[in-house]
Amino acid sequence: MNASPSPEAQTVLAALRERRSIRRFTPEPVDDDALAAILDAGRWAPSGLNNQPWRFLVVRRGDPRQEVLANHTKYAHIVRGAAALICVFLDRAAMYNPRKDHQGAGACIQNMLLAVHALGLGGVWLGEIINREAELLPALGLDPEALETMAVIAVGRPAQHGSSQRKSLESLLLEPL
Amino acid sequence: MNASPSPEAQTVLAALRERRSIRRFTPEPVDDDALAAILDAGRWAPSGLNNQPWRFLVVRRGDPRQEVLANHTKYAHIVRGAAALICVFLDRAAMYNPRKDHQGAGACIQNMLLAVHALGLGGVWLGEIINREAELLPALGLDPEALETMAVIAVGRPAQHGSSQRKSLESLLLEPL
Repeated sequence: MNASPSPEAQTVLAALRERRSIRRFTPEPVDDDALAAILDAGRWAPSGLNNQPWRFLVVRRGDPRQEVLANHTKYAHIVRGAAALICVFLDRAAMYNPRKDHQGAGACIQNMLLAVHALGLGGVWLGEIINREAELLPALGLDPEALETMAVIAVGRPAQHGSSQRKSLESLLLEPL
Repeated sequence: MNASPSPEAQTVLAALRERRSIRRFTPEPVDDDALAAILDAGRWAPSGLNNQPWRFLVVRRGDPRQEVLANHTKYAHIVRGAAALICVFLDRAAMYNPRKDHQGAGACIQNMLLAVHALGLGGVWLGEIINREAELLPALGLDPEALETMAVIAVGRPAQHGSSQRKSLESLLLEPL
């Protein structure tokens, strides 16, 4: 680069590179200030036409809805182990283009996962649960005609180190840089 | 929070909160090391089943394909002003669920926008261009049966300060935290 990245830039680039999915958590809770900081990161994601269609529901450990969520995914053990679950929906009335709104939801979820990582917490993006959204939403007392389910983010203090691999950059480039 | 966020955490949270779309750029180029760092951030995004369906094409200022891109969007002035354009596609053969793959693309694009911001560069997510992907892909010599167009990220040295607003967190929460 023309100049070496600043220490602050290195810190952000490291977070982007080093965040990993964390699926096992300690019994400790996650406090409300941390949850608010995570949600605030999601709030600042970009969206098409700045429509910000995302809506959030936070379910903490012990809330009866934790079990409702667990009963709608094959990742029930992760849901039951999490200190908090951030359910991410789209407000259908705020959507303008499904493909672009789904991309925006992905940016929003990623901002929250990065905030989780930055705060020294662990989290994982649970997408499989949306396969059962037709049953999940009424079970949560929510209206499937008003909301579309995007994901549930399980959050807690990490009880494992994450590990994952990625394809080489070369294999992702349609032509060499 | 149980403890105040560390200085490193504050740096990452600030990047998540302070990144803005930048649509006007100086004539300076963006060097290849910076482009590689941006693409590498995208590479580390999460995806469903870790399928990593994203593929990238980089078009630098002066490449004849810059004008091809400009001719397929109403944001031609932004495309023409950018030092580089990162075209983001999905490899249809690597996809497993359109909604989840589109979300993953959003996470990948957001990682790249955050890297752009961290490096002191400016960038903007151009999504409108996908409305004309049926014509765009053949014009770029790419096969619409193999690739789905996700977005173009315009990148350059910023010639403006970004500015944007967001809804309050309260208005995004289905129930109070």
